[in-house]
Order: sequence, then structure tokens, then C-alpha cells
Amino acid sequence: MRVPIDPRYNDYDTRGHVNNAVYLTYFEIGRHRAWQALTGLTDDFPFIMMEASVRYVSQAKWGDPLTMDITVAEIRTKAWVWSYRIIDPRDERLVAEGRTVQVMFDYEAQHSMRIPDHIRARLSNG
Amino acid sequence: MRVPIDPRYNDYDTRGHVNNAVYLTYFEIGRHRAWQALTGLTDDFPFIMMEASVRYVSQAKWGDPLTMDITVAEIRTKAWVWSYRIIDPRDERLVAEGRTVQVMFDYEAQHSMRIPDHIRARLSNG
Amino acid sequence: MRVPIDPRYNDYDTRGHVNNAVYLTYFEIGRHRAWQALTGLTDDFPFIMMEASVRYVSQAKWGDPLTMDITVAEIRTKAWVWSYRIIDPRDERLVAEGRTVQVMFDYEAQHSMRIPDHIRARLSNG
Amino acid sequence: MRVPIDPRYNDYDTRGHVNNAVYLTYFEIGRHRAWQALTGLTDDFPFIMMEASVRYVSQAKWGDPLTMDITVAEIRTKAWVWSYRIIDPRDERLVAEGRTVQVMFDYEAQHSMRIPDHIRARLSNG
Repeated sequence: MRVPIDPRYNDYDTRGHVNNAVYLTYFEIGRHRAWQALTGLTDDFPFIMMEASVRYVSQAKWGDPLTMDITVAEIRTKAWVWSYRIIDPRDERLVAEGRTVQVMFDYEAQHSMRIPDHIRARLSNG
Repeated sequence: MRVPIDPRYNDYDTRGHVNNAVYLTYFEIGRHRAWQALTGLTDDFPFIMMEASVRYVSQAKWGDPLTMDITVAEIRTKAWVWSYRIIDPRDERLVAEGRTVQVMFDYEAQHSMRIPDHIRARLSNG
Repeated sequence: MRVPIDPRYNDYDTRGHVNNAVYLTYFEIGRHRAWQALTGLTDDFPFIMMEASVRYVSQAKWGDPLTMDITVAEIRTKAWVWSYRIIDPRDERLVAEGRTVQVMFDYEAQHSMRIPDHIRARLSNG
Repeated sequence: MRVPIDPRYNDYDTRGHVNNAVYLTYFEIGRHRAWQALTGLTDDFPFIMMEASVRYVSQAKWGDPLTMDITVAEIRTKAWVWSYRIIDPRDERLVAEGRTVQVMFDYEAQHSMRIPDHIRARLSNG
């Protein structure tokens, strides 16, 4: 799934590059967009982050357009993995890539839970 | 009341200055610190923002230490005004100043309320 | 000029509202977009902020779509004023409004300057 | 090296937790602080990020104090690895941990470079 990114001026730091931490915010935008598109759940994000990683491949400067490809890379019993690629769509240059692992979480009861079957089926399409 | 500011690298934008929006974040740090010190309420911020303004006086560059003076400038029936001055403590140079107006707010009932007398008394010391 | 806003999950704070400081970031998005559209200068922002103010009118919650109207409200010799209205486009509900004053600035020479005539003419269309 | 963290209200998202992306900002605070302490270079950060990863271990809520331990975990020819542990100092509870890989970078020439010997010697003490 391709998700557009709308870079903001204050995403860039004194070097004129997108700040390294901002990529996790970009991943979050993609993750929420993809979750909503796949599950139809637009207000509820019943999962909690376990791991995140980013590999910085090339510099994103002010004025470079950015977009993101996001896919479900793996589904486990309670957790699943999103994989992200941030690219400059003018030439498909890879800017950064990464993955996050999140676990299904019951925020009321404050514990992790199995991924429900209907969610699992939807995520399989991602 | 003087409140220290711990500038972060990503507070600075491509010009090497603290980004203009970040001053409202600095004001928020000061406001929460002062509220806690005056009222003793450390987890509860029962107010909602009505207005904020900033006047940018001189440039804050990476490496410049910053601190903040915050005072209660006015107390009304339901609202009060904080006044802020961001300064470079090396020479008391004024970097920015501003004020915010916030109204006492009952988040349960979702309506504004009179400032309770015991809070009013505490704010008067700010 | 109407500029779309793409709210991000971390624009919202623990109350579930867009954080008060983020409105200045939204204003910046609109200002840069409008500057580029009016002047054709896509990489250069030769001005410096003097003042900003926000009036918070209604709460923006996660899921509420947001857009922005931005106009040039006043043009002086060296400075000009942008006026902003953040609205929920579903019913044109006003969420926040504000204005910023910025002065034309020569970053090389580090001093303010008159607004050049060709820029003035373009801003008059905003 | 132990580096204090000064959490800000808008580091927390709608769940009341420190937002996942903010940990990379905390790592950056520690990295810059440690770089300055070890090398004595206070204005210059001649390196570029290659990789970052975070493991989220326990939830950091508003009011929880946070601090950070940072160490140099590995030094290569051009790159080195910082290792970070974010903890609640009240009971040394681990909140998050991670590592970043950065490469020595000549921003003038726009290429990576060997770590100079005097920098290498200093980093070895981290």
C-alpha cells in the first residue's frame, strides 16, 4: 500500500535533512492509514509498540517529495510486523526503510492478547 | 518563577533557530511546572487553552542556553493569564515573550467553570 | 487560499486534542504553501517571524478532518500579516484562528529589508 | 554516562504514553550530550545516522521521571554504535532501550570518512 507523506518544515533539522526521529512519525502515519484501510477500524488502534528500527539510506532534503510503501511482513500469534520504505517518487530512490513490531493489546485489561481471527484475515491482505 | 529549558536538537529548524512553534511548547513546560509548584496538583491540568501569543525578539541558536520567567499576569472569574519571557541567562537577553489565556475547565462535564477559591489564592502567588 | 492539513497521530496530546503548539506548525504549513503558490519561490523563505497569535475556538479531536484558509491581511513596508482559519470542512466549524507577522529578512546580511516590489505585488493577490 | 531527560507534555500521545518516535529524540539528546562530554566539540556533530532501533519495554506515563544511560558499544573504522537505556530512576525499571549506528561524515565534501584517531580515543572512554 502506498501512503503519501506531507513533509512539514519543522521535520527538517539544522542540516536541512528530515530529522532521524521523524521517520518513526512517518511510519506511524502509514501504519494508521494502513490499519484503517485494512480493518475498517478508524478510531481504534488496539495494539502497542514492541520494536522499531530504521535504516537511513539517502538524505531527504527540503523540497524532495516523499511517499511510503507499507506492507505486513509477518503475522505471529499476538504480534505482527509492518515493513516500511520511504521513497522519493520522482525516481523511486530509497530514502529510508524500517520495520515495527506491535502486539495486540487490550488497553482496558492492560494485557496483550491473541490477534482476533477477523483482524488476522484483514492483515493478511496488507 | 524561573523555569529552566532544556533545548533539544530537533527544536531547531533549517535556519539553525528554535522553530517558532516550539516557543509554545516551552511556554507549556513553564506553565505546567508553575501550575504544579503553585497548586500542588501534579497530575491534573483542569484548564483549556483559549489564546496564545508570542513575540519573537532575538534569534536563539543551537548552543545558546535558554531559561524562562513565568508569572500570573491577570486572574479573571473563569480564566487567567500567564506571561512568559524566554531569555538567554548569560546576559539576560530577551529571546521571546508571550502570554496565554486559559480557562478553568471541567473535562468530565465538558464545560468551563469558575476558578475555585483555593486555586485562585494559589495563582495569586504566581 | 485553502490548504489541506494532514493531521498526525502525535499532533494529539493526552487529552485527545491537537496540542496547542501544533497550530503554529499548521500555520507554517499554510504559510509556506501560500508563499510558494504566490511567489513561485519554492526553496527560499526570506523572512523572519516577529509575532504569532492563536485563538482556540473549538476542540479538534482525532478523526476530525482539518483544513485551513490563509490570506494576506496586511502589507507594510518591511513586514506583512498572514491570517489563518483552521476549520473542520464537514460543517465549516471554526477550530482555531490566528495571525503571524513576518518581516522580509536578508539572512546573508542579517538584517531586515523592504519588501521588493515584485514580491509585494504577488502578496497582494493572497 | 547518565543523562537526565526532561519529558515535555507533548511527548505524550492520546494513550498518555511517551510517543514511540520520541525515544529517538531522547536518544539524540543523550548522544549529543555524550558527544560533547567526550570530545569537547560542542557545536559540531560531524556524523550522519545510518541505523536506529528501539525496543519498548514498559510504558512511560506522564509524571514518571526518566533518565538515560548511554555508552559506546562498538567502534568500527568509520562508524560507531551508541547503546541507550531509558529508565525510571525511582526503581531502575527499564522503559526502553536501543542503539544507533552513525558514520563519521564530512558535510563539506559530502562523504563518509575514517574516525580520526583523537576522536576514536575519546569515544573509547564512552
